[in-house]
Amino acid sequence: MAYTVAVVGATGAVGTQMIKQLEESTLPIEKLRLLSSSRSAGKTLQFKGQDIVVEQTTEESFAGVDIALFSAGGSTSAKYAPYAVKAGAVVVDNTSYFRQNPDVPLVVPEVNAHALDAHNGIIACPNCSTIQMMVALEPVRQKWGLERIIVSTYQAVSGAGARAIEETKRELKEAVVDGVDPKDLKADILPAGGDKKHYSIAFNALAQIDVFTDNDYTYEEMKMTNETKKIMEDDEIKVSATCVRIPVLSAHSESVYIETKDVAPIDEVKKAIASFPGAVLEDDPSQQIYPQAVNAVGKRETFVGRIRKDLDAPKGIHMWIVSDNLLKGAAWNSVQIAETLHERNLVCPTKDLKFPLK
Amino acid sequence: MAYTVAVVGATGAVGTQMIKQLEESTLPIEKLRLLSSSRSAGKTLQFKGQDIVVEQTTEESFAGVDIALFSAGGSTSAKYAPYAVKAGAVVVDNTSYFRQNPDVPLVVPEVNAHALDAHNGIIACPNCSTIQMMVALEPVRQKWGLERIIVSTYQAVSGAGARAIEETKRELKEAVVDGVDPKDLKADILPAGGDKKHYSIAFNALAQIDVFTDNDYTYEEMKMTNETKKIMEDDEIKVSATCVRIPVLSAHSESVYIETKDVAPIDEVKKAIASFPGAVLEDDPSQQIYPQAVNAVGKRETFVGRIRKDLDAPKGIHMWIVSDNLLKGAAWNSVQIAETLHERNLVCPTKDLKFPLK
Repeated sequence: MAYTVAVVGATGAVGTQMIKQLEESTLPIEKLRLLSSSRSAGKTLQFKGQDIVVEQTTEESFAGVDIALFSAGGSTSAKYAPYAVKAGAVVVDNTSYFRQNPDVPLVVPEVNAHALDAHNGIIACPNCSTIQMMVALEPVRQKWGLERIIVSTYQAVSGAGARAIEETKRELKEAVVDGVDPKDLKADILPAGGDKKHYSIAFNALAQIDVFTDNDYTYEEMKMTNETKKIMEDDEIKVSATCVRIPVLSAHSESVYIETKDVAPIDEVKKAIASFPGAVLEDDPSQQIYPQAVNAVGKRETFVGRIRKDLDAPKGIHMWIVSDNLLKGAAWNSVQIAETLHERNLVCPTKDLKFPLK
Repeated sequence: MAYTVAVVGATGAVGTQMIKQLEESTLPIEKLRLLSSSRSAGKTLQFKGQDIVVEQTTEESFAGVDIALFSAGGSTSAKYAPYAVKAGAVVVDNTSYFRQNPDVPLVVPEVNAHALDAHNGIIACPNCSTIQMMVALEPVRQKWGLERIIVSTYQAVSGAGARAIEETKRELKEAVVDGVDPKDLKADILPAGGDKKHYSIAFNALAQIDVFTDNDYTYEEMKMTNETKKIMEDDEIKVSATCVRIPVLSAHSESVYIETKDVAPIDEVKKAIASFPGAVLEDDPSQQIYPQAVNAVGKRETFVGRIRKDLDAPKGIHMWIVSDNLLKGAAWNSVQIAETLHERNLVCPTKDLKFPLK
């Protein structure tokens, strides 16, 4: 048995990584379909040495598709994912559109694969900044409980898509080579493509990712709060985030403070993280060993270091968490969900359609 | 009455800024003396349109000097500051060497100018990352008290000196223009000139500033803890820091979480910060207004925004604090201390010598 897999948003920053992750996947793939907007349709991409022509996504695109990976923005998922489910596919959606829907599991396979068992045709992949934090903190939560999380992120521009990467490279060339004053650089994308104003990122740190909500937190920050509660299945966990974009192309870093329910000895915390699937301990101050964004790029794991006691709070711990936002933060976590669905024999048409066609 | 002022470390990243700040200072200056190591002695620098030849620092350099600004590393201050005091000068030291000495006031003029009154010839300028946090938090502490601080920094490379700036520019050119993989870039300075290993900063975030101490915090992190307690004159304030270098040339950003002793309404916190000397409120999410490093460069003020309640802790507040690390973080704060000494009539020889000659 082998699947027909579709990638929706195949030409984007995450879509192209999804194709690479599928090439290296254990998933039995008979056929790969690449879908996109009309703008990118007609392009040719490679999969395992074969040319595949990108097709425009339509309501009829999903006939015969077993697994559809979506990463083309929330409005595309909102419109087409229900058609994919109706056609018998299982959808793994990398956008935020369905994440808080109670009928949709929100899954980091190392943390809550069991949630897949109750799927209704759509599984949501969490936000990049949430996923890596979950991989690092779940082993701590399992042993000592989690009371609260305060996180400040150092996020890469690739989370805002391929055009944000190009914008950043152009700005840096203008600032470093052409001598343009960083505050005079022009920007069209960051901090959020859909917002009113745009700011340059070269030699800057932008304390805005996505647009602001009514409570003066950004959507990115509220995603970290709400998704953590859903994935860890605990509405009582306190989570407040400050999400910041920095001039890094790929791999997010996070400065995370937690308070555990029970006192957690640091040596045991390190052991628990080191032995957790998907997590790699990189923590030896005497040898200057700690996670670095440039070393995480291209890797599937989440790297954790700088683990140390708070100087005052007996149950407080600080750590530094780094992972490739395009891989574990998006493409790999989505493909890993597909692999897990296959392993659990959960790739099958959904009869009770919960998601109305629009 | 006008002073003879000496700048020790005149050719460095901070020293050159000190000269500019002195040019724009209200301090009556009759003569400026520029001192450095033997390596830079003989160079010529400009002050108010006049050429000044840089002299080598010796034990005899300070005859006739009224005010000596030191920024040439801790060992230079350790050796020569006592000679300057003995010669009758008042020393403003920008290094960490004397900061925890009980005979040395550690001063941010907006916060604790009164501590200058008890000086013994040497006044210490706090660490850059501490200073801007003090300017933002002192108005909050005055009205509602401060229970604890958790801070994650986004620090510019200029804090590591002129060579770190050159290293960063070279790496960025190699990565952006020449296409070198960021993890293959060579580094000689960062994260800490005096440490064993060096890592590239282009497209990276380095969770190490200065070397590590025995408790797995870095010296930079412990400076934020210890200096906050000394400046705010409260050993009970809880402070834990994570200090991170990012690819920004100048201006540090900080994600700061505080818990106040009394509940502080956000609107009143914003008003208190806006009306505090040296602080500028930049906080309007509806207009995407928040402090940015590129806008803070060249300014003396500390910019504060993203002020919002913690989502759970009734006394918890988050904010984003940005300032030019070379100006308020070093050169301007040092010159401002000198101005304040002058205003308070405290520029005079010290008779009771507390700092032994070496």
